[in-house]
Amino acid sequence: MKCKRCQGSAVIEVRRHNAAFCKACFPHVFTEQVRTAIRRFDMFEPTDSILVAVSGGKDSLALWDVLLGLGYEATGLYLGLGIGGYSDRSHDASAAFARSRGAELRVVDLADEYGYDIPTAGRKGSRSTCAVCGLSKRYAFNRAAADGGFDVIATGHNLDDEAATLLGNTLRWNTDYIARQSPSLPARDGMVKKVKPLHRLSELETAAYAFLRGIDYVVEECPLVAGNTQLRYKNAMNTIEATSPGTKAQFLFGYLDRGMPLFAGHDDVALAPCGSCGQHTTGRYCAFCRARAQILGERLGAADRAGTDDREVARWLSDEVLPAEIYGRAEV
Amino acid sequence: MKCKRCQGSAVIEVRRHNAAFCKACFPHVFTEQVRTAIRRFDMFEPTDSILVAVSGGKDSLALWDVLLGLGYEATGLYLGLGIGGYSDRSHDASAAFARSRGAELRVVDLADEYGYDIPTAGRKGSRSTCAVCGLSKRYAFNRAAADGGFDVIATGHNLDDEAATLLGNTLRWNTDYIARQSPSLPARDGMVKKVKPLHRLSELETAAYAFLRGIDYVVEECPLVAGNTQLRYKNAMNTIEATSPGTKAQFLFGYLDRGMPLFAGHDDVALAPCGSCGQHTTGRYCAFCRARAQILGERLGAADRAGTDDREVARWLSDEVLPAEIYGRAEV
Repeated sequence: MKCKRCQGSAVIEVRRHNAAFCKACFPHVFTEQVRTAIRRFDMFEPTDSILVAVSGGKDSLALWDVLLGLGYEATGLYLGLGIGGYSDRSHDASAAFARSRGAELRVVDLADEYGYDIPTAGRKGSRSTCAVCGLSKRYAFNRAAADGGFDVIATGHNLDDEAATLLGNTLRWNTDYIARQSPSLPARDGMVKKVKPLHRLSELETAAYAFLRGIDYVVEECPLVAGNTQLRYKNAMNTIEATSPGTKAQFLFGYLDRGMPLFAGHDDVALAPCGSCGQHTTGRYCAFCRARAQILGERLGAADRAGTDDREVARWLSDEVLPAEIYGRAEV
Repeated sequence: MKCKRCQGSAVIEVRRHNAAFCKACFPHVFTEQVRTAIRRFDMFEPTDSILVAVSGGKDSLALWDVLLGLGYEATGLYLGLGIGGYSDRSHDASAAFARSRGAELRVVDLADEYGYDIPTAGRKGSRSTCAVCGLSKRYAFNRAAADGGFDVIATGHNLDDEAATLLGNTLRWNTDYIARQSPSLPARDGMVKKVKPLHRLSELETAAYAFLRGIDYVVEECPLVAGNTQLRYKNAMNTIEATSPGTKAQFLFGYLDRGMPLFAGHDDVALAPCGSCGQHTTGRYCAFCRARAQILGERLGAADRAGTDDREVARWLSDEVLPAEIYGRAEV
């Protein structure tokens, strides 16, 4: 195979584009796709300060690398989840990348800041480990971005992530979650603007970019991911993609072009400050504070809800639209 | 396992309902699901004359059996597709069933009536074999129902069929096809009303019903089905269903409850009579007449389109909404 751009020897094939690229051209092509995403969805301006949610994996480090390469002011934030050696290695990879690029990495430790780690949250709370982890990340990243005065949070969600999430939400016809699945969510009620500049690029492409750019990322998967629903949707999409290359892209981009307008307004909910932390929410307390109280065995608003225990409160509120989740991946 | 209804020994488990049934109760439960479908979507009245599209397979014969059992005036129509021994055996099974129930079976032969069979159409036309077969069936059934003065056409599409079609159309965000995916499509512009009374029942359930009712249906698959896209979507849905029982039903029923209203109006197209057969269409000639002309090597409207050959005409018209397909399964 020859590189579509320079006719050199290709190292990666992008089947849905019916094209292949050499190791010099592919990072260029990849970067152009990010540029297109930023422009098409008004993600940020050259003067904006960007907080990149960094996990130490291929996607977030590739994103950070591209943004730095394009000259953006991009600070990394690593959130310590307390998942043993996996978290240590993830932190090390993030810190090593930051040093190699002369970029600033901020670190927030979930246990230090909020009193629990993810393994504990998975055991003690009523949510699945992946659900409470996602909720914790969305909350902690938003809080850090707001406190740090950042204009926008950028996450490394790729095409595979976004197509799988959209599939999960569509299989349930969760119209409110579907309505919010945009690569660029504007700031609102204490929520910092949130963008996904890699949504046009597949998982394979971000891995290839990271490899070709010499980024030393954590390859291992989170040890707590077993049974994750999102993975099942990814597998289903991969099965279809194998025989119909381009299905994922067609699904996500088709939604953004033709589907999204139909769902507009389906995420209109009235928000008010959480009675515990002040983050805007649809209920009395935000999803994060309710989950945290449950994990820590604390009680929220016990005074006027005598006779109901925390699990009942959590269950009572569990069907609401949860604003701490508005700006994150819906729980699929 | 015990039967949920009578506590007898169960022979079939319906995982999405977390229930099992014995061989006496299951046909009753199955029939009640058909009754619910008929009522909920105003499919037909006891006085309506129904034309059942019969293929000789489990779904269409189960449907015919249930409708006869409920006392409806249900006539079968078998369409001869000319697919060698497979078509012969399908015809035999349909005729044997009709005899056993004392019901009327009408037969239309595609080659006699329209001048081609499906193997020829697959070889000579520009459409895939499955696509031209679906188009031919929709056209021929509608024509037979209209000519025969029937009030409604009933087809044996089951939950698996409908979920797979919806998945295919949603993966493409084909908003017009999605808008038309109702279990009950009213009559319009020469199109006879079309209903799918089995849409609440899975493929496994229709097979179990046919088996328990002693229906001798054709088990073999059509020999031309290899590579069928619909099958790929069915496989993807089955993969998800295996770990999340109820996903197919949730997807289809969620669409009917919450999705369909959002797509309403997206199938509004202006129709005018086909210049060849008079069936209403969006273009000058309907999809069926164009496909047929191509297969037979005939020319439609050549006089005022000098210089363009048939393939070009077909390509030129291929992106239209095709009214002969309005009332059928979208081509996925």
